[in-house]
Amino acid sequence: MKGRVLISPKKGIADPQGTAVEQALHALGFADVRAVRVGKVIDLELPEGDRVAALAALARMSEQLLANTVVETYSCSILDEGA
Amino acid sequence: MKGRVLISPKKGIADPQGTAVEQALHALGFADVRAVRVGKVIDLELPEGDRVAALAALARMSEQLLANTVVETYSCSILDEGA
Repeated sequence: MKGRVLISPKKGIADPQGTAVEQALHALGFADVRAVRVGKVIDLELPEGDRVAALAALARMSEQLLANTVVETYSCSILDEGA
Repeated sequence: MKGRVLISPKKGIADPQGTAVEQALHALGFADVRAVRVGKVIDLELPEGDRVAALAALARMSEQLLANTVVETYSCSILDEGA
């Protein structure tokens, strides 16, 4: 099954990349865009099986490697394929 | 309203960052993780209003700035706040 981890800078943590994107969007004419934050998305394939165990594994991966939990938050999800 | 753009490397395009993350996960004991792909998530705030127009604006931003459409795909969504 497919798993996804979203990683974003925590509120209050400076996000220079987001600021740069926001300024570039303003320069392109998207004047009313605000609060741009740039993070990472990590998609991966896990063996079929228990969804709860898979989510727990994604959370462990996030804590141990994917996210810097001092300055970043993460959220994990399982992407359903078909119905 | 809150908008989100997800940007991922296209299928068949090499993703060295994904490969590095996959190897690191294997080294940490997550042996059965496969097909790791690392992309970007861009969250931003748009003025309240027409959701269809907002989605179209997100798509234009993606085409013009956020995504490199030669090697990346993007998907846009509006995140609902509350009910």
